[in-house]
Amino acid sequence: MQITLKDIARMADVAESTVSRALNNKPGVGEDTKLKIIKIAKKHNYRPNQLARGLAANKTNMIAVILSEMDSPGNIEIVKSLEKAAEKNGYQIILCNTNNQTEKEKSYLTLLESNQVDGAIFIGGKLVEGHLLRASFSPENNIVLVNRLAEENFFTSVLTDYSQGVYKAVGHLLDQGFENIALVGGEDYNLIEEEKSAGYKAALIDHGYQINEDLIFSIKADRKSGYNVFLEIIEGDIIPDAFISTSELTTIGLVEAIKMGGYFIPDDFAVVGYGDNILTSVIDPPLTVLSEPVDALADYSFNFLLKLINKKMKDQQIKVLTPELIIRESSISKYN
Amino acid sequence: MQITLKDIARMADVAESTVSRALNNKPGVGEDTKLKIIKIAKKHNYRPNQLARGLAANKTNMIAVILSEMDSPGNIEIVKSLEKAAEKNGYQIILCNTNNQTEKEKSYLTLLESNQVDGAIFIGGKLVEGHLLRASFSPENNIVLVNRLAEENFFTSVLTDYSQGVYKAVGHLLDQGFENIALVGGEDYNLIEEEKSAGYKAALIDHGYQINEDLIFSIKADRKSGYNVFLEIIEGDIIPDAFISTSELTTIGLVEAIKMGGYFIPDDFAVVGYGDNILTSVIDPPLTVLSEPVDALADYSFNFLLKLINKKMKDQQIKVLTPELIIRESSISKYN
Repeated sequence: MQITLKDIARMADVAESTVSRALNNKPGVGEDTKLKIIKIAKKHNYRPNQLARGLAANKTNMIAVILSEMDSPGNIEIVKSLEKAAEKNGYQIILCNTNNQTEKEKSYLTLLESNQVDGAIFIGGKLVEGHLLRASFSPENNIVLVNRLAEENFFTSVLTDYSQGVYKAVGHLLDQGFENIALVGGEDYNLIEEEKSAGYKAALIDHGYQINEDLIFSIKADRKSGYNVFLEIIEGDIIPDAFISTSELTTIGLVEAIKMGGYFIPDDFAVVGYGDNILTSVIDPPLTVLSEPVDALADYSFNFLLKLINKKMKDQQIKVLTPELIIRESSISKYN
Repeated sequence: MQITLKDIARMADVAESTVSRALNNKPGVGEDTKLKIIKIAKKHNYRPNQLARGLAANKTNMIAVILSEMDSPGNIEIVKSLEKAAEKNGYQIILCNTNNQTEKEKSYLTLLESNQVDGAIFIGGKLVEGHLLRASFSPENNIVLVNRLAEENFFTSVLTDYSQGVYKAVGHLLDQGFENIALVGGEDYNLIEEEKSAGYKAALIDHGYQINEDLIFSIKADRKSGYNVFLEIIEGDIIPDAFISTSELTTIGLVEAIKMGGYFIPDDFAVVGYGDNILTSVIDPPLTVLSEPVDALADYSFNFLLKLINKKMKDQQIKVLTPELIIRESSISKYN
């Protein structure tokens, strides 16, 4: 049973307008009275302001952004860009980090199911799970997925075309005269990894090269794994002359291992990394990267969500964006 | 008027237990019936699960973590550590980024005031503002401040002792034979900056050195300002031989400017940075840093908040933690 302004007024023995003024921090209420009113409101679990208005209008003007991981500076950039879009449109964002745990994602989904937020944007994460599919039953659950691929996608989504990105990177490295290009991908998201290696293979074939499966690596997307994969590779049969590394953390570890081994970038190994942000920008030498279309990912996903909330989207939409190849010193051959 | 399970049961023409099973995703309900029930629940803005239980128990098991900025990897580390503590204790965290805007902070505070969360931890940010003070009127508002200094602090707080940190850094640099040490601080949080320069001055005096106010710089805590302050300093009358830079982003800019100028670290300029995290760890040469006590900040603040929520804290508590000086190559004199 929800308590009303009237109830509080009765209990505090003041006029209803006084309660409203006190709870909305308007002038004309003495501090003692205000404190008394706030205490009663809290004690009886009164929900004022926004949420009360939200209940009436069936809107909270809050959006949940559900992140698969906070370690990626690229994800943080998307969130910051989403916040700008939300602010412009009178929405607030609450961030939820699932740390790639399905159970956590499920429990954050209750924010949406219990109408505490008007919609949710999921950034990254594994395939669409049962709980998300269940949520898709209800047209009232406003959900947009960003960079989350599923075999059957029931949701409006904004995706990065990793295949096209890797294709570009391979083309650039071949142009520079590098011929043994290793692809260092992740191991968590199968569909995305398949896309990357599809782009890798297509580029090699289109340029008349053979594919060597031994140059495709799937490792955990963290710094240590990036470091270790290099140590493993230089012990191998085929030593590549260039790397395409598709996560920021892996790239950092890989670059560290190359330097620790006494090798030079790009003279001994060319490197193309992923993500154009503060973390990759600190690496020396300046790193060629596939730059995620951060602002476009944020803009499309927010606008899709707004349309869903305002019932202005007829059919599910999917937007695919291509990463840009930003060429810097780390991939320029000195023999070219 | 909140809709109940009973209402939904009547509208869907099923038993109340069926509604409960459908909404809690338990077996024994056909897909069509489930879809019908979910639709009715959403249409009438039914608040199931957690929130409903929260309303009854006056608990949501959600905590808001309100960040002043997301650009600092140190802040992200604190959040990640808080998430671990929350998980262990059956709490969920929702993150709110204020981008240092008072208005945003105020609006996120309504999450607490409207009982959508059980408590809030504020990380960083300016002095305690009116809206926070007002919230402090009510003993029911469970608030803990982290790294947020105020002249009069009514809140339970966990603080980093910046003064002691800078004191340690100065002592170390003097030990290494550096004698003209510049302090590059921020300009946003006066009390914190005063602490830093107090530590700086105390260390110089305790070691028998004179204080030169011209070597204390207050700049915006971003990369560009760190870069520009170096360009300004080398044009000045007194050229320092060492820098203590108290923000991660400033340190990155400063190091870039030193290298771009053709100078070497630590031969030409020693550098002590702030924060022991992925961003500072990528800098070459390995950077001596004041390491923020991230896990302790998270543990103390979460435990304080738990006590507040469970009404087990009698008086306001303040815990002060000292940063550790981690010495690496960037501050070791070759003449020593």
